[in-house]
Amino acid sequence: MTGVNPSWIAVDWGTTNVRAWAMGPEDTVLAEVRSDQGMGRLKPIEFEGALQVLVSDWSVAKGTPVVACGMVGSRQGWFEAPYAFVPCKPSTAVTKAPSGPAFSVRIIGGVAQKSPPDVMRGEETQIAGFLRLNPDFDGVVCLPGTHTKWVHISAGEIVSFQTFMTGEIFGLLSDQSVLRHSMGEDFCEDTFQDAVTDSLGRPQGLAANLFAIRAAGLVGESTPAIARGRLSGLLIGLELAGSRPYWLGQNVAIIAASSLAKLYGAALTRQGVPVIETDANRMTLEGLKAAFAHEKEIA
Amino acid sequence: MTGVNPSWIAVDWGTTNVRAWAMGPEDTVLAEVRSDQGMGRLKPIEFEGALQVLVSDWSVAKGTPVVACGMVGSRQGWFEAPYAFVPCKPSTAVTKAPSGPAFSVRIIGGVAQKSPPDVMRGEETQIAGFLRLNPDFDGVVCLPGTHTKWVHISAGEIVSFQTFMTGEIFGLLSDQSVLRHSMGEDFCEDTFQDAVTDSLGRPQGLAANLFAIRAAGLVGESTPAIARGRLSGLLIGLELAGSRPYWLGQNVAIIAASSLAKLYGAALTRQGVPVIETDANRMTLEGLKAAFAHEKEIA
Repeated sequence: MTGVNPSWIAVDWGTTNVRAWAMGPEDTVLAEVRSDQGMGRLKPIEFEGALQVLVSDWSVAKGTPVVACGMVGSRQGWFEAPYAFVPCKPSTAVTKAPSGPAFSVRIIGGVAQKSPPDVMRGEETQIAGFLRLNPDFDGVVCLPGTHTKWVHISAGEIVSFQTFMTGEIFGLLSDQSVLRHSMGEDFCEDTFQDAVTDSLGRPQGLAANLFAIRAAGLVGESTPAIARGRLSGLLIGLELAGSRPYWLGQNVAIIAASSLAKLYGAALTRQGVPVIETDANRMTLEGLKAAFAHEKEIA
Repeated sequence: MTGVNPSWIAVDWGTTNVRAWAMGPEDTVLAEVRSDQGMGRLKPIEFEGALQVLVSDWSVAKGTPVVACGMVGSRQGWFEAPYAFVPCKPSTAVTKAPSGPAFSVRIIGGVAQKSPPDVMRGEETQIAGFLRLNPDFDGVVCLPGTHTKWVHISAGEIVSFQTFMTGEIFGLLSDQSVLRHSMGEDFCEDTFQDAVTDSLGRPQGLAANLFAIRAAGLVGESTPAIARGRLSGLLIGLELAGSRPYWLGQNVAIIAASSLAKLYGAALTRQGVPVIETDANRMTLEGLKAAFAHEKEIA
């Protein structure tokens, strides 16, 4: 136990990781902890214990409020926090979880769309955080990741959104396909930009352009850095071709870890799109603060 | 030992499987054996022993000719059989492997293309078999599989070709991505055709259309058969969009296992393309016969 005595606890609980912030008066951050006890490793009954272990260095009063976002609220999580359907404000669906006397837990629900069918869970909290800092923002938010989201925001609401499996496809192809033999850790940025242009101009060439990465290593001239830059560029270019209705003629705010934000930012800037890059972790915390404030208001 | 006494042995040696035919006078097939001792499991020094085990039920005279095709001729195989570069006849590059007294081994080399970079190894033998049965064929051959090949044939030569990673991407997405939760063994053919049309019309929508398969299972209406049909159709439709310069206004011969040949045949027929479906195993054997006859001629 330390002297950290949180007024409430903010939790970002994803599939593979969990992170908690001890929040003090005026929403100051007193301490931060994280672990690999993500939703994917836990049964519903194990979440409360996992959270107790995670914050065991703090002096947590019984019944301390907890606000959590992410896959913790999915059907396989601690407790299902239902989706809100667009158009809606982000992170308004906050569900009280049945929990022991240790915490008073609320989980932020995801956002869904009927047609075309789509879902997000976790990103809505980052969007809420972004809107807390930029309340008058009207435009498009892009959240690159395993499942990249493009989100149209108007008057503080999520109007529509679309998810692209770009990150997951990149991971599978670079680690497990025949292309793994061609990849390295290095990354050629010029090749990346050229490949984005290739996919934007001719998205239907994707499956052939991918195999050509391998073939170039066998009968042409290539390097592992070129292969990685080309794979990344072809896939992000395909996504930009498909998400053109979102970004064309728009201001785009990118919410992502810095390396991914830089890639998307570079590709969009090349297309003449003005972009703002923001930090995903900060937006998550701001979104959790917004949800906590909202809960206090309506309590 | 049985009474099977081959004049020569035809071998199709791929990455995961190997199959051998005992060939008699007039190229009749006396017997056939197969095992899972594919190239991927063997070091170069182990191929001769693996072949001896495979044909151990036959009475094989010392120095019996063997003609093999497939990944056995790759750099990681028994012996590297170099690529021939297009334009070239299929399966003309036959390389004598250094082997013991048990067999006299020849391996058919692959075919490569400098620009755009591309390679095939194994398919050239099926094409040679197809041309042995259809010597006057001018047009396009499609060989669906893990790495689908589209091949332009003119005057008995491979003029150009292009490889699409469609099959490998399908396998990764259906078995290992988030879409695996939505898949079943059943397959909806109407959904398949609609998805082909969707990708042909809007190939840039791929990464979003893929995630929508998952989302439809969560917030829409879907079934495992619809999910599988849609995944297959989106990927084959993307390939058909990219390979349009190959098939548009052409006669297309499909060389594949029957289930895959049927899918590609159905999709192409819907586009008004006349197709012939042929059996991949038969074409392989015919191609090995063609290579053996060619070797005898020049010996």
